[in-house]
Amino acid sequence: MTNNISNLIATVGNDLQSGACELALKAITVYQHILNKKTHNTPDEFRGELVKTAKLLIESQPAMAPIFNLSNQVLITAYEALSVESIRTNCLKVLEQSDKNLCENVQVIADYTFDIIPPGGLIFAYSFSSTVISALLSARNKGKYFRVATSEARPSFEGRKLAINLAQGGIEVMHTFDLALGLILPNCSAAFMGADCVGLPGIVNKVGSWLLAIACREYNIPLYVLCDTDKFVSEERLFEFEKHERPGKELWPEFNLTDSNKKIRILNHQFELVSLNLVTSLISEKGVLNPGKIEKYIKTKKTHEALKLEEAFF
Amino acid sequence: MTNNISNLIATVGNDLQSGACELALKAITVYQHILNKKTHNTPDEFRGELVKTAKLLIESQPAMAPIFNLSNQVLITAYEALSVESIRTNCLKVLEQSDKNLCENVQVIADYTFDIIPPGGLIFAYSFSSTVISALLSARNKGKYFRVATSEARPSFEGRKLAINLAQGGIEVMHTFDLALGLILPNCSAAFMGADCVGLPGIVNKVGSWLLAIACREYNIPLYVLCDTDKFVSEERLFEFEKHERPGKELWPEFNLTDSNKKIRILNHQFELVSLNLVTSLISEKGVLNPGKIEKYIKTKKTHEALKLEEAFF
Repeated sequence: MTNNISNLIATVGNDLQSGACELALKAITVYQHILNKKTHNTPDEFRGELVKTAKLLIESQPAMAPIFNLSNQVLITAYEALSVESIRTNCLKVLEQSDKNLCENVQVIADYTFDIIPPGGLIFAYSFSSTVISALLSARNKGKYFRVATSEARPSFEGRKLAINLAQGGIEVMHTFDLALGLILPNCSAAFMGADCVGLPGIVNKVGSWLLAIACREYNIPLYVLCDTDKFVSEERLFEFEKHERPGKELWPEFNLTDSNKKIRILNHQFELVSLNLVTSLISEKGVLNPGKIEKYIKTKKTHEALKLEEAFF
Repeated sequence: MTNNISNLIATVGNDLQSGACELALKAITVYQHILNKKTHNTPDEFRGELVKTAKLLIESQPAMAPIFNLSNQVLITAYEALSVESIRTNCLKVLEQSDKNLCENVQVIADYTFDIIPPGGLIFAYSFSSTVISALLSARNKGKYFRVATSEARPSFEGRKLAINLAQGGIEVMHTFDLALGLILPNCSAAFMGADCVGLPGIVNKVGSWLLAIACREYNIPLYVLCDTDKFVSEERLFEFEKHERPGKELWPEFNLTDSNKKIRILNHQFELVSLNLVTSLISEKGVLNPGKIEKYIKTKKTHEALKLEEAFF
């Protein structure tokens, strides 16, 4: 693997401010680089590099279902193709189609969302989701008036990026710190979030989504999850996000390891699970999906051998 | 009013990292400065400066009941005294007694708390309360083993100060960001917080206390409020904290007011109300208090004329 590609994968792993769709677009670029290299002599050599890349990409963002699903499709396609050239051609088609789907699905979801945004009110949007941003900006462009409340989304502050994106699109934003969502929610008529990963037990999203969900339930505010079915994964993969912890330094850069501070351990997890029953609706490119429908879509997913999880030893 | 005293009051107002008890000790220092000046010729002149100081101090920290109660007692005493010298002597006695009570009450509360700290477990402590810190350190000194989970307490990060204080006292700390309290609470066997102000509708404390309270209820974790009865105020004063908003810059120092960013309004409130029914127990120097007992103590409070709120005009 060239340095160039390792660097590209590293930028995917270190990107804490982007939503799942933006990261999937970055992953597409990584595969395009590899597929367009002319250095592979045999199909197996070619597939070998794709497997290695797939594992690294998935490892770099373990909660991002679109990266897993994209990688999975690339590998299935690469193992079905018989020559170096057909691996290249067929996999590039997969990428092209994924890219197209990502953009189209976002617009379809925006269209479904238009009808459920309460006009004239304040709505809450949590963390950073390009699907949520597109839906809100699209509704505003079509003339619906509303304001949006956002919070920082510590430790990476992607809520600031969300606020700036909405403001640039002409939407008035009230921005506050994360725990102040308890203070601002009573003024909101709906809340929106994206998802990194969806399975039958629930929705994996940025830490804080669970507190948002129980606060919404407490105040009787509908909570909508906007995401396409490319975020759906089997239960087996759903809990992969739990293994990953980010460096404590991201949380507390000035932390000094004095003798007494050795007693402080910093926890920096990125994702958590929100049970489906805490969510009002999941809005996908296939429309509003209930748990039964979600199950149906998940059951159609097949995982390539190379990406199956290893069994635990007992 | 001398610059010296204005500066002292400003340090009280700008102190976002201290708990109510520490701030009350600072307010005592302000009054000591004024009372020890020999520049007042008449009792009215002396009382005038005390009233002015009281109003400024209360305004600087509108949610801090001990500052209000201390100032109230100073004014009642100053207006009962008949000479410059007796104002000085009697008010200094009030300060001395307050100082003594603050320290003694903290120890009594620590003794009550010892019994309710679950041994061997992880407990959650929110924001910064010197009463909570003293209770936890005292329990550890008496040989009870437990660990404490803390969160940042944005925007002022007083949770970091809490973590450092506990670690210096030999307690193992797990520190995380605020919304991750939803992730760490399932591992906790109890949660503790202080209070800035207590009235019949509930407890006024740092924003985030309400989300902590509903998360504790959701996970069936007892939530204890540690505070002395000096934090109790009449309902009239309880909602004063709502008027105050801190500068947005504290939340987002790098915020640039570009044209589109003008659409972003930053909200930085410090305090919120947690209804008494969301709290397991309030532990004071008089023992565990139920709402009936709290009412009894509140009813004994008399407010000096100069500190009564103005009536709204209709």
